[in-house]
Amino acid sequence: MHVLITGGAGMLGCKLAQWLIQDRMIGEHEITKLTLTDITTPKGLPKFQGIYAEHAMDMGDPGSAKKLIQQRPDFIFHLAAVVSGEAEADFEKGYRVNLDSTRYLLEAIRTQQDYCPRVIFTSTIAVFGVPFPNPIPDTHHRTPLSCYGTQKAIGELLLADYSRRGILQGIGLRLPTICIRPGLPNKAASSFFSGILREPLNGKEAVLPVSEDVRHWHASPRAAIRFLLHAASIDLELVGRDCNLTLPGLCASVKEQIEALERAAGKDAVSLIRREPDHFIERLVYSWPESFEAEKARSLGFKAEKDFDEIIRIYMEDELGAAS
Amino acid sequence: MHVLITGGAGMLGCKLAQWLIQDRMIGEHEITKLTLTDITTPKGLPKFQGIYAEHAMDMGDPGSAKKLIQQRPDFIFHLAAVVSGEAEADFEKGYRVNLDSTRYLLEAIRTQQDYCPRVIFTSTIAVFGVPFPNPIPDTHHRTPLSCYGTQKAIGELLLADYSRRGILQGIGLRLPTICIRPGLPNKAASSFFSGILREPLNGKEAVLPVSEDVRHWHASPRAAIRFLLHAASIDLELVGRDCNLTLPGLCASVKEQIEALERAAGKDAVSLIRREPDHFIERLVYSWPESFEAEKARSLGFKAEKDFDEIIRIYMEDELGAAS
Repeated sequence: MHVLITGGAGMLGCKLAQWLIQDRMIGEHEITKLTLTDITTPKGLPKFQGIYAEHAMDMGDPGSAKKLIQQRPDFIFHLAAVVSGEAEADFEKGYRVNLDSTRYLLEAIRTQQDYCPRVIFTSTIAVFGVPFPNPIPDTHHRTPLSCYGTQKAIGELLLADYSRRGILQGIGLRLPTICIRPGLPNKAASSFFSGILREPLNGKEAVLPVSEDVRHWHASPRAAIRFLLHAASIDLELVGRDCNLTLPGLCASVKEQIEALERAAGKDAVSLIRREPDHFIERLVYSWPESFEAEKARSLGFKAEKDFDEIIRIYMEDELGAAS
Repeated sequence: MHVLITGGAGMLGCKLAQWLIQDRMIGEHEITKLTLTDITTPKGLPKFQGIYAEHAMDMGDPGSAKKLIQQRPDFIFHLAAVVSGEAEADFEKGYRVNLDSTRYLLEAIRTQQDYCPRVIFTSTIAVFGVPFPNPIPDTHHRTPLSCYGTQKAIGELLLADYSRRGILQGIGLRLPTICIRPGLPNKAASSFFSGILREPLNGKEAVLPVSEDVRHWHASPRAAIRFLLHAASIDLELVGRDCNLTLPGLCASVKEQIEALERAAGKDAVSLIRREPDHFIERLVYSWPESFEAEKARSLGFKAEKDFDEIIRIYMEDELGAAS
């Protein structure tokens, strides 16, 4: 089985690749080839018996998808995207990378003969916009209030239509906000949810741009990789025609995040959090959902963390080398 | 005020143009220029003091929208579309005409300086897919089960995002199935809903491809024109950011349609309906919704007919010259 990951240099893409290189299986299928692509060359992964290829490619260029799909990968993890803050700030880039690239990919698949790969598409809870009930049921309409949410909601619709037509086997995952993201802050407006834990855990100062009563929907990077792998091997008959799923997550307030930080790393860590309200981020975050039923995804076996102590422990184990 | 109608040679486009030429007003605004465009040249309308232009243009060609928008119309009725049956049968054409043309139009508007026209976009109840509650509330998710529904649902998302960004003043209308459509049957899978009344009212045989217990959501062409005009003049502050509305309609079964036909034109007319089950159409129609709450649109003053007697009377008045 040949696996393709777009956005392979991103945080999730790298972690997924590491997992696949280690495990060499997707469900019952042995992985014999792995291709990663991103705008920069994905780096730092162990070689995989010479059958692992890296490409620097702009998926917003119509030729890129064609070239990748000519190799007929069996599983495609389509993770390539510009994050929310950047898609809002650069309208054209957001539409090109988050919408056009998805359409080019689906069209490249459609025009291959006798080919019907599994496509795992990462969507977002930002497809939902205020007002919403709390928790939000699976059947609640998608009325995004950001370019990023709009582009992902369109990707979902395309994925479902191409799947319905038998062009591909699509499954879309509305990921919770991933927390704690390792590495540096990114341009996502949600970046601080990780920053206020990650920086203090590394002895650094962090900025909190919103109030402590903000509640949000989280899952660890480890849960996200589990979601992607489960989506790759699940029986799509069980998923049905509405192939875009809101995934389970942990609903927690910033206050609860900080309390868990104190339990894990003490008061000194907490004192590294500096309050600095940012109205741009605050406005955006208040238009985001807090909590979901995620009934269908739960019934299909998708699982997230139960509390922030668990999320912090996962970060310490996976990123800081703490004993598990 | 300059008004542009895309799809101006279609049934709704023609009726709207006739109305605008007669009334010369949209709300408080006097119409000084009217441009119609379609794949064929719209014909048969009275001249409008020389300020009425017709263009044959393919809106799926990126240059068409640019050319039209350079004239900076104040009101744009974007009706151009390939109907449901055709969009399903010709995948590429459907995406080109129903999705690309909408995006080209919105992009042409975005790249004009200091310009923010009102854009009235016709969407469809086919953005909804089974399973659904009955009636369907305004907040029910859009999970279309046809290419046409998918393309229109994407158009809605684009319209809302471009409106949110202040690029245009968008309002999207999920029209009920228009009944009784005048003229010849079209390639829409819903065409028979009109045919079973229109053909007998004209002394002709009609084909009924589905069972009599099929229920559906209807409005007359006259109601549709009222919807479009109301959308053009309504205060968009009242509509809010979720600018795509499910419009009110009349929920009726095929049986109720036929009973109203008998009351209007007698048993002889009814005997002209020939049952000829068509599994392609039947399958498609069973995936369509029957009834909606349409709460928001009703509260904004949109109104449809109360029974099929009224819908038949409107057809007889507007198309067969019956006295009103």
